[in-house]
Amino acid sequence: MTSPLEKVCAEVLKRVNPSESERKKVQALAKKLIEKVEKAAKEKRVEAEVRVEGSVAKNTWLRDCPEIDVFMCVPTTMPREDFGTVCLEIAKEATEGYRQIERFAEHPYLEAIVDKVWVNVVPCYRVKPGEWISATDRTPFHTDYVKPLLDEQKGGEVRLLKRFMKGVGVYGAEIKVGGFSGYLCELLVLNYGSFIKVLKAAADWKEKTVIDYEGHYERKDDAKKLFEEPFVMVDPVDKRRNVAAAVRKERLDEFIVASRAFLKTPDLKFFYPPHIEALEPTELVNRINGRGSAIVFISFKGGPAVPDVLWGQLYKSQRALRKLIQKHDFTVLRDTVWSNEKNLNTFIFEVENRFLPNMKRHLGPPLSKRMSCEKFLRKHVGAESTVSGPRIEGGRWVVDVQRRYTDVVKLLKEKLEDSGAGVGLAEFVSKAVADSLEVMVNDEALKLYSGSPEFSKFLTEYLEGKPSWLT
Amino acid sequence: MTSPLEKVCAEVLKRVNPSESERKKVQALAKKLIEKVEKAAKEKRVEAEVRVEGSVAKNTWLRDCPEIDVFMCVPTTMPREDFGTVCLEIAKEATEGYRQIERFAEHPYLEAIVDKVWVNVVPCYRVKPGEWISATDRTPFHTDYVKPLLDEQKGGEVRLLKRFMKGVGVYGAEIKVGGFSGYLCELLVLNYGSFIKVLKAAADWKEKTVIDYEGHYERKDDAKKLFEEPFVMVDPVDKRRNVAAAVRKERLDEFIVASRAFLKTPDLKFFYPPHIEALEPTELVNRINGRGSAIVFISFKGGPAVPDVLWGQLYKSQRALRKLIQKHDFTVLRDTVWSNEKNLNTFIFEVENRFLPNMKRHLGPPLSKRMSCEKFLRKHVGAESTVSGPRIEGGRWVVDVQRRYTDVVKLLKEKLEDSGAGVGLAEFVSKAVADSLEVMVNDEALKLYSGSPEFSKFLTEYLEGKPSWLT
Repeated sequence: MTSPLEKVCAEVLKRVNPSESERKKVQALAKKLIEKVEKAAKEKRVEAEVRVEGSVAKNTWLRDCPEIDVFMCVPTTMPREDFGTVCLEIAKEATEGYRQIERFAEHPYLEAIVDKVWVNVVPCYRVKPGEWISATDRTPFHTDYVKPLLDEQKGGEVRLLKRFMKGVGVYGAEIKVGGFSGYLCELLVLNYGSFIKVLKAAADWKEKTVIDYEGHYERKDDAKKLFEEPFVMVDPVDKRRNVAAAVRKERLDEFIVASRAFLKTPDLKFFYPPHIEALEPTELVNRINGRGSAIVFISFKGGPAVPDVLWGQLYKSQRALRKLIQKHDFTVLRDTVWSNEKNLNTFIFEVENRFLPNMKRHLGPPLSKRMSCEKFLRKHVGAESTVSGPRIEGGRWVVDVQRRYTDVVKLLKEKLEDSGAGVGLAEFVSKAVADSLEVMVNDEALKLYSGSPEFSKFLTEYLEGKPSWLT
Repeated sequence: MTSPLEKVCAEVLKRVNPSESERKKVQALAKKLIEKVEKAAKEKRVEAEVRVEGSVAKNTWLRDCPEIDVFMCVPTTMPREDFGTVCLEIAKEATEGYRQIERFAEHPYLEAIVDKVWVNVVPCYRVKPGEWISATDRTPFHTDYVKPLLDEQKGGEVRLLKRFMKGVGVYGAEIKVGGFSGYLCELLVLNYGSFIKVLKAAADWKEKTVIDYEGHYERKDDAKKLFEEPFVMVDPVDKRRNVAAAVRKERLDEFIVASRAFLKTPDLKFFYPPHIEALEPTELVNRINGRGSAIVFISFKGGPAVPDVLWGQLYKSQRALRKLIQKHDFTVLRDTVWSNEKNLNTFIFEVENRFLPNMKRHLGPPLSKRMSCEKFLRKHVGAESTVSGPRIEGGRWVVDVQRRYTDVVKLLKEKLEDSGAGVGLAEFVSKAVADSLEVMVNDEALKLYSGSPEFSKFLTEYLEGKPSWLT
């Protein structure tokens, strides 16, 4: 008899394990790409070692989404700028005739779609371990480290874990997600032994978990002190690098609770979340108005082309705006940010009330601080901004003063119109809002969601506001 | 050349020191009252020692308000009940023909107005020090202790201090005020030497000041530990009693800041606060509406006849109501209570908003508490009260739930209509609100203040909300 847990995993394995023919097709394509890159490099007189890395090299790719990473490892004598010139030309040459997109992570690389398969052609330096120059220099070492340790069965476990993480929304080390990379998934399976064992361990992860699979550190506490991130996986090929550095606390927590929930009630929905139907605009309006809160939409155009740069700036600006709103006493219930990663971005701040009363309690100094008290009294007694007081409460002076901003929309418009000076926005945001800022509340944003099905879906999920598996 | 400080004090002394003829009149009246009480006691066959106590005995009374305390000190063999029967009859007999009011502090006594002078006729037990039976037994010892230490000059200093305390609103040990008693004023002057020296010391009083004039305690820390109150004056005639036990923290603080302010800018207004003109009802309405807050008036009839009992219950109920309102997330800016001490009482709660949004953030357990998390999810996932979530934020589950009460008026009406069960109201209040409760907001209370000049004045002062000397 198989348990429900085993049943679900078996079903998922069937879906994620590539078939023999699929493997062959991908392997053949990979081989062909290597040859093409090698040839193009030779033509450009670049002495490159060309290899396949990533999930295809390690046989941990998911059936539906092969992605072939072709690395050209160049000598350290090549100047860094050449990554964006010569190397990019080689990549273009090698994938000529296919759709090509120039990308940029720490350095430029090329994405191409070859025979319906996503391909990345990435330059890196051929270095000795520890002598890293560019961020991708470690990748070949990761491949070489993991490959011999993963057999076919373990590969399946990695696929289960990746699919689970995709399903619960924690997969991907890009800034937008801040989740778990494929390499991290592989190391987790190596460390704990299987998909289920990873989940069982994660269900019990404490405040700051450190995994040091290679035993680089004599004591875990040393590693704990060295890394600041909430979850640490010491890189087997570089003891000073945390493979989980990109994992944000929220994603970590979400993975932990999803693990607990799945182990308790195994279900396919954890791997394949149900499709969410965007609510109709009128229904959205009803739901938003029914909450009694004020959902503020801050919409503006533009943005950097590189997603990691875009999201980094959006998140930074989101934090700055949250601070601004809270500083003016509005209670933020929740906030998020949406972008189509092309030309449209929207911050969402849900506050308890759009309006605050005219008056606010302003706490003054404790009586023990005599000089501060005198200064406080000089400032507030009879001042125009004083509504009531000053009076003494709980050993301090207190005064009721007029609020500077009683409308969160007015606050945002005023602060943002002048490029948001002093607010702490990221550069592109402060430029963009000056040109194309719109601040809307609740049903005022109707045109925003009726104009974009993608945004409607995002908003529908926002209103639900819970993990997709939580039903 | 006299300083402004000396000038002001000299002027006040002129006003508060009784003239020779006034003294003679009061002394003569006191002597006559003693004789009358002695005679009445003899007739009732009560062997009483009759003496004058209080400010008249100690020559510390203020010119405009002499108040003669006549004590009959009876043997300890007399049953306590006789205070309310025989002793009261003696007092009535002795002041026959004058207006009489039965009073009750810890035990019954009689107040009478004889030749325009307020007179109290009070029974107490004739005991040895330390063998106190009733609360007034210490009074003759207080008189005997203070009298020889206060000469005419020191008496003037006490008068200055009393007048100052009256002026800044901290005089009187009754529950309504929670301030400084006359005896406490006398001890302060004895301890520090003069009115100004008391103020200079008070300006510097720290967190918990202990004065032990008689040196009953070897170390001040012992006394500090023994007494819980914010200010301690060890009673010279009873080391276990704090003469300042009635002084509430607010009054103490108000005295401290008034002392600082007066020393900095001496002015008659500290002794004789300017008369406050009650605002016209329409102006009151304007001022109240202009604040943008919601001032909630909770009005009800009735109340105990004894002021200390009335105010004790009102304050207790005020605290309970404040807790209730805050527990339901309304932000209380300030609260107070008014009573005409006859049949009308009004609590005032000023809250930021009368209405709260439908929705509130409800913090759940941290992820580390697995059982609590499961319970939390069982309760909130898909529940009718759930608006959004549950989701994870900062390592805890969080859910947006519907609020039980979004209107503070509805909250109060519902909770109070059923005698305020569970709210923690004092007895008379819970009975009274069930019969005669009215809850009004802002201008709805118009009839309340247009109907009572006394209440209008109170409300005018409330809206100012600062010490009368602070201009």
